[in-house]
Amino acid sequence: MFEFMTIRELYEMVFSNNHVEIDSLEYVQLQGWVRTNRDNGKVGFIELNDGTYFRNAQLVYGDLIKNRDEIAKFSTGSAITVTGQFKLTPDAKQPFEIVVTEAVLEGACDPSYPLQKKRHSFEYMREIAHLRPRANTFYAVFRLRSVLSMAIHEFFQDQGFVYVHTPILTGNDGEGAGEMFTATTRKDADYEKDFFGKEAFLTVTGQLHVEAFAMAFRDVYTFGPAFRAENSNTSRHASEFWMIEPEIAFADLDDNMDLIEDMVKFCINYVLENALEEMKFFEKMIDQDCIKRITHVRDSEFKRMPYTEAIEILEKADVKFENKVFWGMDLNSEHERYICEQVVKGPVFLTDYPKEIKAFYMRVNDDNKTVAACDLLVPGVGELVGGSQREERYDVLDHRMDELGMKKDNLQWYMDLRRYGGCKHAGFGLGFDRFLMYLTGIQNIRDVEPFPRTPRNLLF
Amino acid sequence: MFEFMTIRELYEMVFSNNHVEIDSLEYVQLQGWVRTNRDNGKVGFIELNDGTYFRNAQLVYGDLIKNRDEIAKFSTGSAITVTGQFKLTPDAKQPFEIVVTEAVLEGACDPSYPLQKKRHSFEYMREIAHLRPRANTFYAVFRLRSVLSMAIHEFFQDQGFVYVHTPILTGNDGEGAGEMFTATTRKDADYEKDFFGKEAFLTVTGQLHVEAFAMAFRDVYTFGPAFRAENSNTSRHASEFWMIEPEIAFADLDDNMDLIEDMVKFCINYVLENALEEMKFFEKMIDQDCIKRITHVRDSEFKRMPYTEAIEILEKADVKFENKVFWGMDLNSEHERYICEQVVKGPVFLTDYPKEIKAFYMRVNDDNKTVAACDLLVPGVGELVGGSQREERYDVLDHRMDELGMKKDNLQWYMDLRRYGGCKHAGFGLGFDRFLMYLTGIQNIRDVEPFPRTPRNLLF
Repeated sequence: MFEFMTIRELYEMVFSNNHVEIDSLEYVQLQGWVRTNRDNGKVGFIELNDGTYFRNAQLVYGDLIKNRDEIAKFSTGSAITVTGQFKLTPDAKQPFEIVVTEAVLEGACDPSYPLQKKRHSFEYMREIAHLRPRANTFYAVFRLRSVLSMAIHEFFQDQGFVYVHTPILTGNDGEGAGEMFTATTRKDADYEKDFFGKEAFLTVTGQLHVEAFAMAFRDVYTFGPAFRAENSNTSRHASEFWMIEPEIAFADLDDNMDLIEDMVKFCINYVLENALEEMKFFEKMIDQDCIKRITHVRDSEFKRMPYTEAIEILEKADVKFENKVFWGMDLNSEHERYICEQVVKGPVFLTDYPKEIKAFYMRVNDDNKTVAACDLLVPGVGELVGGSQREERYDVLDHRMDELGMKKDNLQWYMDLRRYGGCKHAGFGLGFDRFLMYLTGIQNIRDVEPFPRTPRNLLF
Repeated sequence: MFEFMTIRELYEMVFSNNHVEIDSLEYVQLQGWVRTNRDNGKVGFIELNDGTYFRNAQLVYGDLIKNRDEIAKFSTGSAITVTGQFKLTPDAKQPFEIVVTEAVLEGACDPSYPLQKKRHSFEYMREIAHLRPRANTFYAVFRLRSVLSMAIHEFFQDQGFVYVHTPILTGNDGEGAGEMFTATTRKDADYEKDFFGKEAFLTVTGQLHVEAFAMAFRDVYTFGPAFRAENSNTSRHASEFWMIEPEIAFADLDDNMDLIEDMVKFCINYVLENALEEMKFFEKMIDQDCIKRITHVRDSEFKRMPYTEAIEILEKADVKFENKVFWGMDLNSEHERYICEQVVKGPVFLTDYPKEIKAFYMRVNDDNKTVAACDLLVPGVGELVGGSQREERYDVLDHRMDELGMKKDNLQWYMDLRRYGGCKHAGFGLGFDRFLMYLTGIQNIRDVEPFPRTPRNLLF
């Protein structure tokens, strides 16, 4: 008799030091994929991964099995079912091994398999995105992606936030966050005859729609895909990405910053608790500072500094920036990192940016020059989160949209939220993929997305 | 001194019967929106909702407040902040009330506000989708939507499933689940010069992509939007909707059906535990059987019946169906409901459908006539979930795609999963919006989606 177990269950059992359980376990069955198989003639060793845990189980096979020759030929990548005797190995590198008594090939792996033991470049791995989750780095990234998603949901749901599926298809071309794709069923751009009877776009933000829900549920959030049709081939831009956009009613910019700080700290804790094996891997293989960096952020008080003060500091700084500093400019990464890493030496919110460089919906401050915006800067990368208090005054919003020459027809519904019991409210946007890059130290957004989409690149 | 509290917190405190807490509470502050305001000259009553709870708090204002005249004019929909004395009212309809000592108007509501007290048709409410979450029915629907989303995540994450964000933009036009939208930045359909250098579609399913991840993580799921460009104006079809698509490796059709049954039961329990107020509202206002119906399903064993047996039963049935029954047909709703409601009298999986009416990726059975598919039928609606074991044999899949005349270039990566350690695996698709319809008894998919998109309908 044997017990079917996952490799995660075996490791957790061993780490728990539960000797009653360990001692009672004799034979186990595992299913998974061969990572390596080496045979010294006398004894053979298979490193097996079953998808449930970052680490492998070591299988040992000797002379006593009837299909030993077959087993010795199981190639890297093959799917197998194996039964064997569970044995603690306190003197070995791995804490236990399975002495194989039976092994069955479930799915062979062709010799052309690209994921042999040697290391490949990340560029090459993108060309085999359907296979790369089996490689250590991507296995760790994509499990972390799942854990971090759950962290987000738990954080908001535990506080009673309502999750809203804002639409992907939108009729608003003026959401103010970048170039948009058109979704169509025609080849002639005759949108009046098109599926929706007008031009449909892929959303760049769920914020405008979720604001409507904040006026019913007080605290809400979105978590879904967004799109940018920008032809920029950088390591931080993808054409399709996931965003988190909370919106809170009866709340101002300070409440918003409190929420951002809580969320970032919660997520860091959650990841360290639920994906420590993966984080240790990133620390070892990708970015030796990653755990230290996020632990420092978790344990820091997030400072707050007005944009105007930051500009004054930058102007006085004894540093030669590539881009000249002046009030009214959009800060570059060099400036953000200087403030955050050299001046504050920790996470900092810059607040109250010039209205000219921010979106139309941000609340105009009493100086009529700045808006109640906040960007969270963190050491190592610069901007991580951007948020603002929203303009809740109908006439001010109306005036601002005129100033910017915006067409208002499609956004009358959004403006009407201000006429029908619109209260002060605030919210922010967190680029989920960039948050993952920040946590892991992975430098290219293409390497944290399951099937990345970028200009001229739509594989699979 | 007063304590800021939400209406949910007040109800939970009262229901908990914690008298120490209740007795120590004197003055509270609430923020929310006026649902109704009536003044009999002597005393006035405001029903306030703050978005945290389905039920309102009753505010009472008398002669002692200085801005009483102003308060009496707070119109339906207005946002207010109110401070007052908390009082249990054991003899009244509502368990407590707040005797107002101060009330401030945060955001007025224009007299043109469409959500006055009278009831509106669901059709009309779709035209004010930005406001309808404030109306009871939609307030209940959209909170349930959030609760059910969390149920899905908890169910899968607790069992170690990895959540995968499969891409929305895809190069595969042959995913086999319906008409597709094209995403483009051009007006001339010259896709070689387009953003991606080839035609890009909005996905109809994440299944093909998530299969790649099941071959790394064993148990995975997607939960995200999908699209159909079908010009069908029915109450059950939307052009944009959310889908859940789990995929499990080393698993066959029986494992798949076990998983579906577990998931459906878990979600029903979760909803009854976490959104009982909302479910009671649906029972009272929308569908008096809804709680009974889902409780029955939760407590039933899900039966399993081959399609061929179902056809035999239908052929012998003493019922005049609108559509003639014959082996090889796609069952209509009348047939599904007959089997489920009259024959089995409970939830039932129909299995092993003719391959001609099912998708190319389903595993061909040994009879070479049927495939290892399963549809879950439930009383009241018919089909709720569709799943299958996937064809893991390269040559059989290859042959099947040829038979169907499919272009294989774009799907070579998918076929290759079978060459590189592909093991038996299975999965299913659950239309999230239809699941919500099933739970609530709401008859039109447009009324469970925040901003529904259907042919010629792209409001907001």
